[in-house]
Amino acid sequence: MQPLPDPFLSSAEEVLRAACLPPSKSLLPSAAPAGSSPPASSVADPGVPAQDRAVSCLPPGILSGPPTREDPRAYRGWRSDSFSRVTRVVRDIPVAVHLDVDLLFPASYCQLRAASLVHDCLVQLSNPNVAAMKEDVLYHFSLSTSTHDFPAMFGDVKFVCVGGSPSRMNTFIRYVAAELGLAHPGEEYPNICAGTDRYAMYKVGPVLSVSHGMGIPSIAIMLHELIKLLYHARCSNVTIIRIGTSGGIGLEPGSVVITQQAVDACFKPEFEQIVLGKRVVRSTNLDEQLVQELMQCSTNLNEFTTVVGNTMCTLDFYEGQGRLDGALCCYTEKDKQAYLHAAHAAGIRNIEMESSVFAAMCGACGLRAAVVCVTLLDRLQGDQINSPHEVLAEYQQRPQRLVGHFIKKSLGRA
Amino acid sequence: MQPLPDPFLSSAEEVLRAACLPPSKSLLPSAAPAGSSPPASSVADPGVPAQDRAVSCLPPGILSGPPTREDPRAYRGWRSDSFSRVTRVVRDIPVAVHLDVDLLFPASYCQLRAASLVHDCLVQLSNPNVAAMKEDVLYHFSLSTSTHDFPAMFGDVKFVCVGGSPSRMNTFIRYVAAELGLAHPGEEYPNICAGTDRYAMYKVGPVLSVSHGMGIPSIAIMLHELIKLLYHARCSNVTIIRIGTSGGIGLEPGSVVITQQAVDACFKPEFEQIVLGKRVVRSTNLDEQLVQELMQCSTNLNEFTTVVGNTMCTLDFYEGQGRLDGALCCYTEKDKQAYLHAAHAAGIRNIEMESSVFAAMCGACGLRAAVVCVTLLDRLQGDQINSPHEVLAEYQQRPQRLVGHFIKKSLGRA
Repeated sequence: MQPLPDPFLSSAEEVLRAACLPPSKSLLPSAAPAGSSPPASSVADPGVPAQDRAVSCLPPGILSGPPTREDPRAYRGWRSDSFSRVTRVVRDIPVAVHLDVDLLFPASYCQLRAASLVHDCLVQLSNPNVAAMKEDVLYHFSLSTSTHDFPAMFGDVKFVCVGGSPSRMNTFIRYVAAELGLAHPGEEYPNICAGTDRYAMYKVGPVLSVSHGMGIPSIAIMLHELIKLLYHARCSNVTIIRIGTSGGIGLEPGSVVITQQAVDACFKPEFEQIVLGKRVVRSTNLDEQLVQELMQCSTNLNEFTTVVGNTMCTLDFYEGQGRLDGALCCYTEKDKQAYLHAAHAAGIRNIEMESSVFAAMCGACGLRAAVVCVTLLDRLQGDQINSPHEVLAEYQQRPQRLVGHFIKKSLGRA
Repeated sequence: MQPLPDPFLSSAEEVLRAACLPPSKSLLPSAAPAGSSPPASSVADPGVPAQDRAVSCLPPGILSGPPTREDPRAYRGWRSDSFSRVTRVVRDIPVAVHLDVDLLFPASYCQLRAASLVHDCLVQLSNPNVAAMKEDVLYHFSLSTSTHDFPAMFGDVKFVCVGGSPSRMNTFIRYVAAELGLAHPGEEYPNICAGTDRYAMYKVGPVLSVSHGMGIPSIAIMLHELIKLLYHARCSNVTIIRIGTSGGIGLEPGSVVITQQAVDACFKPEFEQIVLGKRVVRSTNLDEQLVQELMQCSTNLNEFTTVVGNTMCTLDFYEGQGRLDGALCCYTEKDKQAYLHAAHAAGIRNIEMESSVFAAMCGACGLRAAVVCVTLLDRLQGDQINSPHEVLAEYQQRPQRLVGHFIKKSLGRA
């Protein structure tokens, strides 16, 4: 099995191809041997016309003088001993290539890393008002631009993983830290949102782990503030993945579903919202390439069944998902089975409560997004989640293991 | 100012009036002097025909022998040294009157209490399936009927207070414990849902305090499981109050709104839900008498402004409430102001994210329900919640103080 291409390196290749450079003229090596020193001279690639180096989409002063907010050297968490940058124009698109050496962690190797390959894929808002605000209070995170240095705290974030439960997201950050070789014995990962109990947030290296509670409104509040956080921090090339739990349809419990399309309770790939009293409908498409990359990771791991399928996102766990065991229920087992079988026929393989708004909001803000959920039961067989605690706990680790492997591979550490 | 009538006592009076007994024949004294012994003999009221005592809607064996689940003596938390029961039929309705002496707590007085005055107002489900289930796993509470004795744990609950934040609900239980004279120095209130981090639940005496997270889906999951919990515990005469935070419309920040009617983002007093792919609409009416009783409590307290008004319940905090400071926004300040002014003209005084499903579900299951929210800002003046932490913390205590006073008064301890 071929390893997945590194997303940074492969997008670099794409840009170079667009610039009509022969592949052999690639700025970025396909792999960095452990302990190698940075081939800084390769940045001054003879295939790149000299005059292009003068064109920059970034503020002046980046390449010399003390670190600025735009300078990777200023980022807490990613300390660069040496780095070079080339900017040029490819078919009218300003492009910047950074090469830096990550020396942050006491790892056993020094890895050459393409920190960000840019048309800078900076996180964008779909709201012009925020740029004009003097202060932005992210109330439900208990963070504010006037009291926290967002670029320093979060500027190096490349992967954001979100899930319902705060304790699960804490477990995940520990797991990822260990997988990436960034863990130290006895190390604690403080909750960055300690000033509130609405959400919990943890960070290690380029990975941010955030809880979102249950349901569309709860994850939507979190996403509004998270996307603004990434914007204020000037993050670029961010991938965001929801790792969650769900009810399966026609799948063995414990199977993992990578969402192809998030659909509503009427099986439509839409997210409908009332804005100023009017219905607004947004698309719930997700990144197709990311789905394939994640599926490939699961094949590599070969630890549990993983399928790609549609995910139904509902506003209620009981009546809204056709359960017969809520406080309210006015239909029969037969009605429920007819509904679930119709869902299965529409390509739906699992049901949860956040994917549609997650896909819609990330899509609107240009974030590369995916949803990876384990199924805790097969809804065709029942409604109650009554497997033993240990079994459910192991199930809940599966999306973490899959996504942990994906991150490791993306960083060239798998 | 006249004190509010005790709801138990006043409903007793109503039943007695219905039974055509002269008010002087009331079974229930209007107040119990501290230290008085229970007037058990008054139960055998000469105004009650002897033959009526044989009619019971309850299982046999209640009045003698060891405690049963239906027997108040079996309830953990309410220990009765002596109690009597009279059952009879009033206009075809089986009625049971309990009088018991509450000796549970090392309080300085022994209070005669009408534990429950019954047609027994037991908590009902709107789902016939649950009664037939051998086990009911309340997954998001990490409680199950097969591992927990619900009648023993919760049978004495008369007041349920719910709110978004777990820590706020912990603060509330401590406050109520102190107000009711049930607190002991250094006492901890363990989280009954310690096996999960989805919700937190605390109990003291007849008061249960439960967190519900943010948004309709999150509170709906909690309510399904809470109502089933109260049903399995055979609770009766339960009052449930949401104590929350909100954005005000045209009110001084810190004002408290008691909800007259919960309305949706189109100002309709409805809660719409998709069930098996079809739209189901439920009423969001709340208990009018309870609104008046709470308003009277606020008048008695005289500590902060309280108004009765409609509450708009939305599925989103940013676009859904017309905020200009989210990650997405495609309208102007003028559009927003027009919407909020239209809401104000429709009688809406505050906006939050849970009231409509709360009203609909409690209504469907016959629970006496109210919503009491403080306003953290005036939305006509801005979108960001940026008052100092101490100010916001004091605001958030206001619904707690109001509802704490209401409970104290209802139990005859105010």
